[in-house]
Amino acid sequence: MQAVPTEFVTLAHALADAARPVVKRYFRTPVAVDVKADDSPVTIADREVEAAMRVLIKERFPEHGIFGEEHGQENTGAEWVWVLDPIDGTKAFITGKPSFGTLIGLCHRGRPVLGVIDQAILGERWIGGLDHATTLNGAPARVRACDDLQKAYAYTTGPEHFDAATLPAWNRIAASVRQPRYGCDCYAYALLASGFVDLVVEAGLKPYDYCALVPVIEQAGGTVTDWTGRAVTIASDGTICAAGDSRAHAQALKVLAAS
Amino acid sequence: MQAVPTEFVTLAHALADAARPVVKRYFRTPVAVDVKADDSPVTIADREVEAAMRVLIKERFPEHGIFGEEHGQENTGAEWVWVLDPIDGTKAFITGKPSFGTLIGLCHRGRPVLGVIDQAILGERWIGGLDHATTLNGAPARVRACDDLQKAYAYTTGPEHFDAATLPAWNRIAASVRQPRYGCDCYAYALLASGFVDLVVEAGLKPYDYCALVPVIEQAGGTVTDWTGRAVTIASDGTICAAGDSRAHAQALKVLAAS
Repeated sequence: MQAVPTEFVTLAHALADAARPVVKRYFRTPVAVDVKADDSPVTIADREVEAAMRVLIKERFPEHGIFGEEHGQENTGAEWVWVLDPIDGTKAFITGKPSFGTLIGLCHRGRPVLGVIDQAILGERWIGGLDHATTLNGAPARVRACDDLQKAYAYTTGPEHFDAATLPAWNRIAASVRQPRYGCDCYAYALLASGFVDLVVEAGLKPYDYCALVPVIEQAGGTVTDWTGRAVTIASDGTICAAGDSRAHAQALKVLAAS
Repeated sequence: MQAVPTEFVTLAHALADAARPVVKRYFRTPVAVDVKADDSPVTIADREVEAAMRVLIKERFPEHGIFGEEHGQENTGAEWVWVLDPIDGTKAFITGKPSFGTLIGLCHRGRPVLGVIDQAILGERWIGGLDHATTLNGAPARVRACDDLQKAYAYTTGPEHFDAATLPAWNRIAASVRQPRYGCDCYAYALLASGFVDLVVEAGLKPYDYCALVPVIEQAGGTVTDWTGRAVTIASDGTICAAGDSRAHAQALKVLAAS
Protein backbone atom coordinates (compact mmCIF):
# COMPACT_ATOMS: atom_id res chain seq x y z
CA MET A 1 0.00 0.00 0.00
CA GLN A 2 1.11 3.49 -0.77
CA ALA A 3 2.49 5.52 2.15
CA VAL A 4 0.72 8.78 2.82
CA PRO A 5 2.71 11.78 1.54
CA THR A 6 3.84 14.03 4.35
CA GLU A 7 2.14 17.08 2.84
CA PHE A 8 -1.21 15.30 3.26
CA VAL A 9 -0.42 14.74 6.94
CA THR A 10 0.40 18.43 7.22
CA LEU A 11 -2.95 19.31 5.65
CA ALA A 12 -4.77 16.95 8.04
CA HIS A 13 -3.28 18.85 10.97
CA ALA A 14 -4.20 22.16 9.35
CA LEU A 15 -7.80 21.01 8.94
CA ALA A 16 -8.01 20.06 12.62
CA ASP A 17 -6.36 23.35 13.57
CA ALA A 18 -9.01 25.20 11.58
CA ALA A 19 -11.84 23.22 13.19
CA ARG A 20 -10.86 23.70 16.82
CA PRO A 21 -11.56 27.39 17.40
CA VAL A 22 -14.96 27.12 15.72
CA VAL A 23 -15.92 24.10 17.83
CA LYS A 24 -14.75 25.81 21.00
CA ARG A 25 -16.59 29.03 20.20
CA TYR A 26 -19.95 27.24 19.90
CA PHE A 27 -19.55 24.61 22.65
CA ARG A 28 -22.03 25.11 25.51
CA THR A 29 -23.63 28.11 23.87
CA PRO A 30 -27.28 28.10 22.80
CA VAL A 31 -27.07 26.99 19.16
CA ALA A 32 -30.10 26.35 17.00
CA VAL A 33 -30.53 22.66 16.31
CA ASP A 34 -31.97 21.66 12.95
CA VAL A 35 -33.11 18.16 12.17
CA LYS A 36 -31.92 16.65 8.91
CA ALA A 37 -33.76 14.32 6.57
CA ASP A 38 -32.23 11.32 8.37
CA ASP A 39 -33.55 12.70 11.70
CA SER A 40 -30.04 13.54 12.98
CA PRO A 41 -29.37 16.97 14.46
CA VAL A 42 -27.07 19.59 12.95
CA THR A 43 -25.97 22.99 14.16
CA ILE A 44 -24.26 26.02 12.70
CA ALA A 45 -21.09 24.72 14.34
CA ASP A 46 -21.15 21.54 12.23
CA ARG A 47 -21.67 23.57 9.06
CA GLU A 48 -19.04 26.21 9.76
CA VAL A 49 -16.39 23.69 10.78
CA GLU A 50 -16.84 21.65 7.61
CA ALA A 51 -16.90 24.76 5.41
CA ALA A 52 -13.60 25.92 6.89
CA MET A 53 -11.99 22.55 6.20
CA ARG A 54 -13.29 22.38 2.62
CA VAL A 55 -11.76 25.76 1.79
CA LEU A 56 -8.32 24.56 2.90
CA ILE A 57 -8.52 21.32 0.91
CA LYS A 58 -9.54 23.14 -2.27
CA GLU A 59 -6.75 25.68 -1.85
CA ARG A 60 -4.00 23.12 -1.39
CA PHE A 61 -5.17 20.10 -3.40
CA PRO A 62 -7.97 21.13 -5.76
CA GLU A 63 -7.72 17.77 -7.54
CA HIS A 64 -8.73 15.86 -4.37
CA GLY A 65 -12.29 14.75 -3.74
CA ILE A 66 -14.35 15.65 -0.65
CA PHE A 67 -17.09 13.66 1.09
CA GLY A 68 -18.48 15.67 4.01
CA GLU A 69 -21.40 15.03 6.30
CA GLU A 70 -22.90 18.51 6.00
CA HIS A 71 -21.94 19.89 2.59
CA GLY A 72 -21.98 16.76 0.47
CA GLN A 73 -19.78 15.07 -2.10
CA GLU A 74 -17.49 16.62 -4.70
CA ASN A 75 -15.22 14.79 -7.12
CA THR A 76 -15.39 11.57 -5.11
CA GLY A 77 -14.03 9.61 -8.08
CA ALA A 78 -10.62 11.20 -7.45
CA GLU A 79 -7.62 9.10 -6.40
CA TRP A 80 -7.54 10.86 -3.00
CA VAL A 81 -10.77 11.73 -1.19
CA TRP A 82 -11.09 13.56 2.14
CA VAL A 83 -13.93 12.26 4.30
CA LEU A 84 -15.06 14.80 6.89
CA ASP A 85 -17.33 14.75 9.92
CA PRO A 86 -17.00 18.21 11.48
CA ILE A 87 -18.66 17.15 14.74
CA ASP A 88 -19.09 13.41 15.17
CA GLY A 89 -21.41 13.13 18.15
CA THR A 90 -23.54 16.21 17.58
CA LYS A 91 -25.94 14.97 20.30
CA ALA A 92 -23.07 14.95 22.79
CA PHE A 93 -21.99 18.39 21.54
CA ILE A 94 -25.41 19.97 22.02
CA THR A 95 -25.73 18.47 25.52
CA GLY A 96 -22.37 19.90 26.59
CA LYS A 97 -20.50 16.59 26.78
CA PRO A 98 -16.96 16.55 25.36
CA SER A 99 -17.04 13.04 23.90
CA PHE A 100 -17.68 14.29 20.35
CA GLY A 101 -14.84 14.83 17.92
CA THR A 102 -13.85 16.23 14.57
CA LEU A 103 -13.14 13.36 12.19
CA ILE A 104 -10.83 13.81 9.21
CA GLY A 105 -10.19 10.81 7.00
CA LEU A 106 -8.28 10.47 3.76
CA CYS A 107 -9.05 7.59 1.39
CA HIS A 108 -6.77 6.37 -1.39
CA ARG A 109 -8.83 4.63 -4.07
CA GLY A 110 -11.54 4.09 -1.45
CA ARG A 111 -9.33 2.71 1.31
CA PRO A 112 -8.88 4.85 4.48
CA VAL A 113 -5.14 5.53 4.80
CA LEU A 114 -4.95 8.59 7.07
CA GLY A 115 -7.15 9.61 9.96
CA VAL A 116 -7.54 12.27 12.64
CA ILE A 117 -9.75 12.24 15.75
CA ASP A 118 -9.60 15.72 17.27
CA GLN A 119 -11.27 16.60 20.59
CA ALA A 120 -11.23 20.38 20.70
CA ILE A 121 -12.37 20.87 24.30
CA LEU A 122 -9.91 18.41 25.83
CA GLY A 123 -7.18 19.54 23.44
CA GLU A 124 -6.52 15.98 22.27
CA ARG A 125 -5.57 14.92 18.76
CA TRP A 126 -5.04 11.37 17.58
CA ILE A 127 -3.55 11.00 14.08
CA GLY A 128 -2.36 7.91 12.25
CA GLY A 129 -1.70 6.91 8.67
CA LEU A 130 0.20 4.47 6.48
CA ASP A 131 3.88 4.93 7.43
CA HIS A 132 2.83 7.39 10.14
CA ALA A 133 2.33 5.51 13.42
CA THR A 134 -0.56 6.79 15.52
CA THR A 135 0.14 9.53 18.03
CA LEU A 136 -1.86 11.38 20.67
CA ASN A 137 -0.66 14.98 20.84
CA GLY A 138 2.62 13.82 19.35
CA ALA A 139 3.29 10.92 21.73
CA PRO A 140 2.99 7.32 20.50
CA ALA A 141 -0.44 5.73 20.99
CA ARG A 142 -0.68 1.93 21.13
CA VAL A 143 -3.49 -0.54 21.68
CA ARG A 144 -3.27 -2.99 24.57
CA ALA A 145 -3.39 -6.77 24.58
CA CYS A 146 -6.69 -8.55 25.25
CA ASP A 147 -6.45 -12.26 24.46
CA ASP A 148 -10.00 -13.14 25.47
CA LEU A 149 -13.29 -11.40 24.69
CA GLN A 150 -14.48 -12.13 28.24
CA LYS A 151 -11.83 -9.69 29.53
CA ALA A 152 -12.80 -6.90 27.13
CA TYR A 153 -14.19 -3.47 27.96
CA ALA A 154 -16.48 -2.82 25.00
CA TYR A 155 -18.12 0.43 23.89
CA THR A 156 -20.96 1.37 21.62
CA THR A 157 -22.70 4.73 21.38
CA GLY A 158 -26.13 3.53 22.48
CA PRO A 159 -28.65 0.76 21.89
CA GLU A 160 -30.84 3.17 19.91
CA HIS A 161 -28.19 3.22 17.17
CA PHE A 162 -28.94 -0.40 16.29
CA ASP A 163 -32.00 -1.61 14.39
CA ALA A 164 -34.03 -4.79 14.69
CA ALA A 165 -31.51 -6.63 12.53
CA THR A 166 -28.36 -5.55 14.41
CA LEU A 167 -29.46 -5.09 18.04
CA PRO A 168 -29.43 -8.83 18.82
CA ALA A 169 -25.79 -9.00 17.68
CA TRP A 170 -24.81 -6.15 20.00
CA ASN A 171 -26.72 -7.79 22.84
CA ARG A 172 -24.69 -10.97 22.28
CA ILE A 173 -21.49 -8.90 22.42
CA ALA A 174 -22.67 -7.14 25.61
CA ALA A 175 -23.27 -10.55 27.18
CA SER A 176 -19.86 -11.87 26.09
CA VAL A 177 -17.53 -9.13 27.31
CA ARG A 178 -16.35 -8.14 30.75
CA GLN A 179 -18.12 -4.80 30.61
CA PRO A 180 -20.35 -3.22 27.96
CA ARG A 181 -20.19 0.57 28.02
CA TYR A 182 -22.16 3.28 26.28
CA GLY A 183 -22.07 6.83 25.07
CA CYS A 184 -18.61 7.62 23.75
CA ASP A 185 -19.18 8.44 20.08
CA CYS A 186 -15.85 8.59 18.21
CA TYR A 187 -13.98 9.05 21.47
CA ALA A 188 -14.36 5.31 22.17
CA TYR A 189 -12.17 4.55 19.14
CA ALA A 190 -9.56 7.04 20.31
CA LEU A 191 -9.50 5.39 23.74
CA LEU A 192 -9.10 2.04 21.99
CA ALA A 193 -6.12 3.35 20.00
CA SER A 194 -4.53 4.46 23.28
CA GLY A 195 -5.06 1.10 24.99
CA PHE A 196 -7.82 1.95 27.48
CA VAL A 197 -10.67 0.16 25.71
CA ASP A 198 -10.58 -3.26 24.01
CA LEU A 199 -13.51 -3.36 21.61
CA VAL A 200 -15.92 -1.00 19.84
CA VAL A 201 -18.89 -2.38 17.91
CA GLU A 202 -21.32 -0.23 15.96
CA ALA A 203 -23.71 -0.41 13.01
CA GLY A 204 -25.51 2.02 10.75
CA LEU A 205 -22.47 4.26 10.33
CA LYS A 206 -21.80 6.46 7.33
CA PRO A 207 -18.36 6.81 5.64
CA TYR A 208 -17.74 10.11 7.45
CA ASP A 209 -18.43 8.34 10.76
CA TYR A 210 -15.81 5.62 10.29
CA CYS A 211 -13.19 6.41 7.61
CA ALA A 212 -11.03 8.54 9.92
CA LEU A 213 -11.10 5.93 12.69
CA VAL A 214 -9.63 3.09 10.65
CA PRO A 215 -6.04 4.39 10.17
CA VAL A 216 -5.92 5.76 13.74
CA ILE A 217 -6.62 2.27 15.09
CA GLU A 218 -4.65 0.27 12.52
CA GLN A 219 -1.51 2.38 12.93
CA ALA A 220 -1.82 1.97 16.72
CA GLY A 221 -1.69 -1.81 16.26
CA GLY A 222 -5.42 -2.57 16.24
CA THR A 223 -7.77 -4.30 13.84
CA VAL A 224 -10.86 -2.80 12.18
CA THR A 225 -13.24 -4.59 9.84
CA ASP A 226 -16.95 -4.72 9.11
CA TRP A 227 -18.99 -7.34 10.99
CA THR A 228 -18.15 -10.02 8.40
CA GLY A 229 -14.41 -9.44 8.69
CA ARG A 230 -13.95 -7.54 5.44
CA ALA A 231 -11.55 -4.60 5.20
CA VAL A 232 -13.32 -1.27 5.63
CA THR A 233 -13.63 1.01 2.60
CA ILE A 234 -15.55 4.16 1.78
CA ALA A 235 -18.21 1.83 0.34
CA SER A 236 -18.55 -0.47 3.38
CA ASP A 237 -21.93 -1.40 4.85
CA GLY A 238 -21.57 0.77 7.99
CA THR A 239 -20.97 -2.05 10.46
CA ILE A 240 -17.73 -1.69 12.41
CA CYS A 241 -15.87 -4.12 14.65
CA ALA A 242 -12.71 -2.55 16.06
CA ALA A 243 -10.39 -4.23 18.55
CA GLY A 244 -6.99 -3.57 20.02
CA ASP A 245 -6.05 -7.25 19.94
CA SER A 246 -6.66 -9.39 16.84
CA ARG A 247 -7.58 -12.35 19.07
CA ALA A 248 -10.44 -10.45 20.71
CA HIS A 249 -11.40 -9.18 17.25
CA ALA A 250 -11.67 -12.71 15.85
CA GLN A 251 -13.79 -13.80 18.82
CA ALA A 252 -16.05 -10.76 18.45
CA LEU A 253 -16.65 -11.55 14.77
CA LYS A 254 -17.80 -15.04 15.74
CA VAL A 255 -20.22 -13.65 18.32
CA LEU A 256 -21.55 -11.14 15.80
CA ALA A 257 -22.08 -13.90 13.20
CA ALA A 258 -23.82 -16.34 15.54
CA SER A 259 -27.59 -16.20 15.47
CA MET B 1 -34.74 24.12 56.32
CA GLN B 2 -31.46 24.99 57.92
CA ALA B 3 -28.94 26.85 55.75
CA VAL B 4 -25.58 25.16 55.37
CA PRO B 5 -22.89 26.82 57.53
CA THR B 6 -20.17 28.40 55.46
CA GLU B 7 -17.44 26.37 57.16
CA PHE B 8 -19.05 23.21 55.81
CA VAL B 9 -18.93 24.67 52.30
CA THR B 10 -15.26 25.46 52.89
CA LEU B 11 -14.64 21.86 53.91
CA ALA B 12 -16.48 20.55 50.86
CA HIS B 13 -14.09 22.53 48.64
CA ALA B 14 -11.14 21.24 50.66
CA LEU B 15 -12.28 17.65 50.17
CA ALA B 16 -12.54 18.15 46.42
CA ASP B 17 -9.15 19.88 46.42
CA ALA B 18 -7.67 16.84 48.18
CA ALA B 19 -9.26 14.42 45.74
CA ARG B 20 -8.12 16.05 42.52
CA PRO B 21 -4.38 15.38 42.51
CA VAL B 22 -4.91 11.73 43.45
CA VAL B 23 -7.46 11.25 40.68
CA LYS B 24 -5.20 12.96 38.15
CA ARG B 25 -2.18 10.93 39.18
CA TYR B 26 -3.93 7.60 38.50
CA PHE B 27 -6.00 8.57 35.44
CA ARG B 28 -4.93 6.67 32.31
CA THR B 29 -2.26 4.73 34.16
CA PRO B 30 -2.42 0.94 34.48
CA VAL B 31 -4.21 0.48 37.83
CA ALA B 32 -5.20 -2.89 39.23
CA VAL B 33 -8.97 -3.35 39.12
CA ASP B 34 -10.55 -5.37 41.90
CA VAL B 35 -14.12 -6.56 41.77
CA LYS B 36 -16.23 -5.97 44.85
CA ALA B 37 -18.95 -8.15 46.32
CA ASP B 38 -21.59 -6.25 44.31
CA ASP B 39 -19.58 -6.95 41.13
CA SER B 40 -18.55 -3.31 40.72
CA PRO B 41 -14.90 -2.42 40.06
CA VAL B 42 -12.65 -0.53 42.45
CA THR B 43 -9.09 0.73 42.12
CA ILE B 44 -6.42 2.06 44.42
CA ALA B 45 -7.44 5.52 43.18
CA ASP B 46 -10.95 5.13 44.63
CA ARG B 47 -9.55 3.99 47.95
CA GLU B 48 -6.85 6.65 48.25
CA VAL B 49 -9.18 9.48 47.31
CA GLU B 50 -11.77 8.51 49.90
CA ALA B 51 -9.14 7.96 52.60
CA ALA B 52 -7.75 11.46 51.99
CA MET B 53 -11.21 12.98 52.33
CA ARG B 54 -12.05 11.06 55.50
CA VAL B 55 -8.90 12.34 57.21
CA LEU B 56 -9.93 15.95 56.56
CA ILE B 57 -13.48 15.45 57.84
CA LYS B 58 -12.27 13.83 61.04
CA GLU B 59 -9.73 16.60 61.62
CA ARG B 60 -12.21 19.44 61.23
CA PHE B 61 -15.54 17.98 62.37
CA PRO B 62 -14.93 14.78 64.33
CA GLU B 63 -18.56 14.76 65.44
CA HIS B 64 -19.82 14.39 61.85
CA GLY B 65 -20.75 11.04 60.38
CA ILE B 66 -19.25 9.57 57.19
CA PHE B 67 -20.84 7.23 54.64
CA GLY B 68 -18.30 6.35 51.96
CA GLU B 69 -18.44 3.92 49.07
CA GLU B 70 -15.06 2.32 49.73
CA HIS B 71 -14.37 2.59 53.46
CA GLY B 72 -17.84 2.22 54.91
CA GLN B 73 -20.02 3.95 57.48
CA GLU B 74 -19.01 5.70 60.70
CA ASN B 75 -21.29 7.54 63.10
CA THR B 76 -24.08 7.79 60.54
CA GLY B 77 -26.60 8.62 63.28
CA ALA B 78 -24.96 12.06 63.61
CA GLU B 79 -26.86 15.24 62.74
CA TRP B 80 -24.50 15.92 59.82
CA VAL B 81 -23.27 13.06 57.65
CA TRP B 82 -20.84 13.32 54.73
CA VAL B 83 -21.66 10.95 51.87
CA LEU B 84 -18.66 10.26 49.63
CA ASP B 85 -18.10 8.59 46.28
CA PRO B 86 -14.42 9.14 45.50
CA ILE B 87 -14.83 8.14 41.84
CA ASP B 88 -18.41 7.85 40.66
CA GLY B 89 -18.08 6.14 37.30
CA THR B 90 -15.15 3.87 38.01
CA LYS B 91 -15.82 2.05 34.73
CA ALA B 92 -15.41 5.35 32.86
CA PHE B 93 -12.28 6.10 34.89
CA ILE B 94 -10.60 2.79 34.07
CA THR B 95 -11.41 3.16 30.37
CA GLY B 96 -9.85 6.62 30.25
CA LYS B 97 -13.09 8.57 29.77
CA PRO B 98 -13.45 11.79 31.80
CA SER B 99 -17.17 11.50 32.54
CA PHE B 100 -16.61 10.20 36.08
CA GLY B 101 -16.56 12.53 39.06
CA THR B 102 -15.83 12.85 42.74
CA LEU B 103 -19.11 13.16 44.63
CA ILE B 104 -19.27 14.88 48.01
CA GLY B 105 -22.64 15.15 49.70
CA LEU B 106 -23.61 16.44 53.11
CA CYS B 107 -26.86 15.30 54.72
CA HIS B 108 -28.62 17.07 57.58
CA ARG B 109 -30.81 14.58 59.45
CA GLY B 110 -30.81 12.41 56.33
CA ARG B 111 -31.68 15.12 53.81
CA PRO B 112 -28.99 16.10 51.26
CA VAL B 113 -28.31 19.83 51.77
CA LEU B 114 -24.88 20.38 50.18
CA GLY B 115 -23.29 18.71 47.19
CA VAL B 116 -20.17 18.77 45.02
CA ILE B 117 -19.59 17.18 41.62
CA ASP B 118 -15.89 17.54 40.83
CA GLN B 119 -14.37 16.49 37.49
CA ALA B 120 -10.65 16.47 38.09
CA ILE B 121 -9.46 15.99 34.49
CA LEU B 122 -11.61 18.75 33.02
CA GLY B 123 -11.01 20.96 36.05
CA GLU B 124 -14.73 21.49 36.62
CA ARG B 125 -16.46 21.79 39.99
CA TRP B 126 -20.17 22.16 40.57
CA ILE B 127 -21.20 23.00 44.14
CA GLY B 128 -24.60 23.89 45.56
CA GLY B 129 -26.29 23.88 48.95
CA LEU B 130 -29.11 25.43 50.94
CA ASP B 131 -28.54 29.20 50.78
CA HIS B 132 -25.58 28.60 48.45
CA ALA B 133 -26.80 28.76 44.85
CA THR B 134 -25.12 26.28 42.53
CA THR B 135 -21.96 27.38 40.74
CA LEU B 136 -19.62 25.85 38.16
CA ASN B 137 -16.07 26.99 38.90
CA GLY B 138 -17.54 29.97 40.75
CA ALA B 139 -19.94 31.12 38.03
CA PRO B 140 -23.71 30.68 38.48
CA ALA B 141 -25.13 27.43 37.07
CA ARG B 142 -28.82 27.30 36.18
CA VAL B 143 -31.10 24.70 34.68
CA ARG B 144 -32.99 25.50 31.47
CA ALA B 145 -36.70 25.47 30.73
CA CYS B 146 -38.27 22.39 29.13
CA ASP B 147 -42.05 22.54 29.23
CA ASP B 148 -42.67 19.26 27.43
CA LEU B 149 -41.06 15.86 27.91
CA GLN B 150 -41.11 15.36 24.14
CA LYS B 151 -38.51 18.14 23.83
CA ALA B 152 -36.19 16.70 26.48
CA TYR B 153 -32.65 15.42 26.07
CA ALA B 154 -32.53 12.60 28.63
CA TYR B 155 -29.53 10.72 29.99
CA THR B 156 -28.98 7.48 31.82
CA THR B 157 -25.70 5.66 32.35
CA GLY B 158 -26.64 2.52 30.46
CA PRO B 159 -29.42 0.00 30.00
CA GLU B 160 -27.40 -2.57 31.95
CA HIS B 161 -27.90 -0.48 35.10
CA PHE B 162 -31.62 -1.32 35.14
CA ASP B 163 -33.12 -4.64 36.16
CA ALA B 164 -36.16 -6.50 34.90
CA ALA B 165 -38.41 -4.39 37.12
CA THR B 166 -37.03 -0.98 36.10
CA LEU B 167 -35.88 -1.39 32.48
CA PRO B 168 -39.42 -1.13 31.03
CA ALA B 169 -39.84 2.22 32.78
CA TRP B 170 -36.61 3.56 31.26
CA ASN B 171 -37.67 2.25 27.86
CA ARG B 172 -40.92 4.22 28.18
CA ILE B 173 -38.91 7.35 29.03
CA ALA B 174 -36.57 6.73 26.09
CA ALA B 175 -39.61 6.51 23.80
CA SER B 176 -41.17 9.68 25.25
CA VAL B 177 -38.27 12.14 25.02
CA ARG B 178 -36.69 13.93 22.10
CA GLN B 179 -33.42 12.08 22.53
CA PRO B 180 -32.31 9.37 24.98
CA ARG B 181 -28.58 9.45 25.66
CA TYR B 182 -26.20 7.14 27.47
CA GLY B 183 -22.95 6.92 29.33
CA CYS B 184 -22.48 10.05 31.38
CA ASP B 185 -22.36 8.80 34.99
CA CYS B 186 -22.64 11.71 37.44
CA TYR B 187 -21.58 14.15 34.73
CA ALA B 188 -25.11 13.99 33.28
CA TYR B 189 -26.47 15.60 36.46
CA ALA B 190 -23.84 18.32 36.29
CA LEU B 191 -24.82 19.05 32.69
CA LEU B 192 -28.46 19.19 33.81
CA ALA B 193 -27.57 21.72 36.53
CA SER B 194 -25.87 23.86 33.87
CA GLY B 195 -28.85 23.73 31.50
CA PHE B 196 -27.50 21.47 28.75
CA VAL B 197 -29.56 18.38 29.58
CA ASP B 198 -33.24 18.23 30.59
CA LEU B 199 -33.74 14.90 32.35
CA VAL B 200 -31.73 12.16 34.04
CA VAL B 201 -33.40 8.91 35.09
CA GLU B 202 -31.62 6.11 36.93
CA ALA B 203 -32.33 3.22 39.29
CA GLY B 204 -30.34 0.98 41.58
CA LEU B 205 -28.26 3.84 42.97
CA LYS B 206 -26.67 3.90 46.41
CA PRO B 207 -26.70 6.96 48.74
CA TYR B 208 -23.12 7.84 47.73
CA ASP B 209 -24.23 7.80 44.07
CA TYR B 210 -27.04 10.33 44.49
CA CYS B 211 -26.80 12.41 47.72
CA ALA B 212 -24.30 14.91 46.29
CA LEU B 213 -26.34 15.41 43.14
CA VAL B 214 -29.53 16.55 44.83
CA PRO B 215 -28.40 19.95 46.21
CA VAL B 216 -26.40 20.71 43.05
CA ILE B 217 -29.55 20.34 40.97
CA GLU B 218 -32.04 21.85 43.44
CA GLN B 219 -29.92 24.95 44.02
CA ALA B 220 -29.60 25.36 40.24
CA GLY B 221 -33.40 25.49 39.98
CA GLY B 222 -34.09 21.84 39.18
CA THR B 223 -36.23 19.11 40.73
CA VAL B 224 -35.02 15.74 42.03
CA THR B 225 -37.20 12.99 43.51
CA ASP B 226 -37.41 9.22 43.50
CA TRP B 227 -39.58 7.62 40.83
CA THR B 228 -42.72 8.03 42.97
CA GLY B 229 -42.15 11.75 43.50
CA ARG B 230 -40.89 11.57 47.08
CA ALA B 231 -38.09 13.82 48.29
CA VAL B 232 -34.70 12.09 48.16
CA THR B 233 -33.04 11.17 51.45
CA ILE B 234 -30.07 9.07 52.47
CA ALA B 235 -32.59 6.23 52.93
CA SER B 236 -34.27 6.50 49.50
CA ASP B 237 -34.84 3.47 47.29
CA GLY B 238 -32.13 4.36 44.74
CA THR B 239 -34.45 5.47 41.94
CA ILE B 240 -33.78 9.00 40.74
CA CYS B 241 -35.78 11.30 38.46
CA ALA B 242 -34.01 14.64 38.00
CA ALA B 243 -35.22 17.41 35.71
CA GLY B 244 -34.35 21.01 35.05
CA ASP B 245 -37.99 22.00 34.62
CA SER B 246 -40.69 20.87 37.09
CA ARG B 247 -43.14 20.45 34.22
CA ALA B 248 -40.94 17.90 32.46
CA HIS B 249 -40.32 16.29 35.86
CA ALA B 250 -44.05 15.82 36.49
CA GLN B 251 -44.52 14.33 33.02
CA ALA B 252 -41.59 11.98 33.53
CA LEU B 253 -43.04 10.72 36.81
CA LYS B 254 -46.26 9.85 35.01
CA VAL B 255 -44.38 7.92 32.33
CA LEU B 256 -42.36 6.08 34.99
CA ALA B 257 -45.56 5.14 36.87
CA ALA B 258 -47.48 3.91 33.81
CA SER B 259 -47.24 0.17 33.19
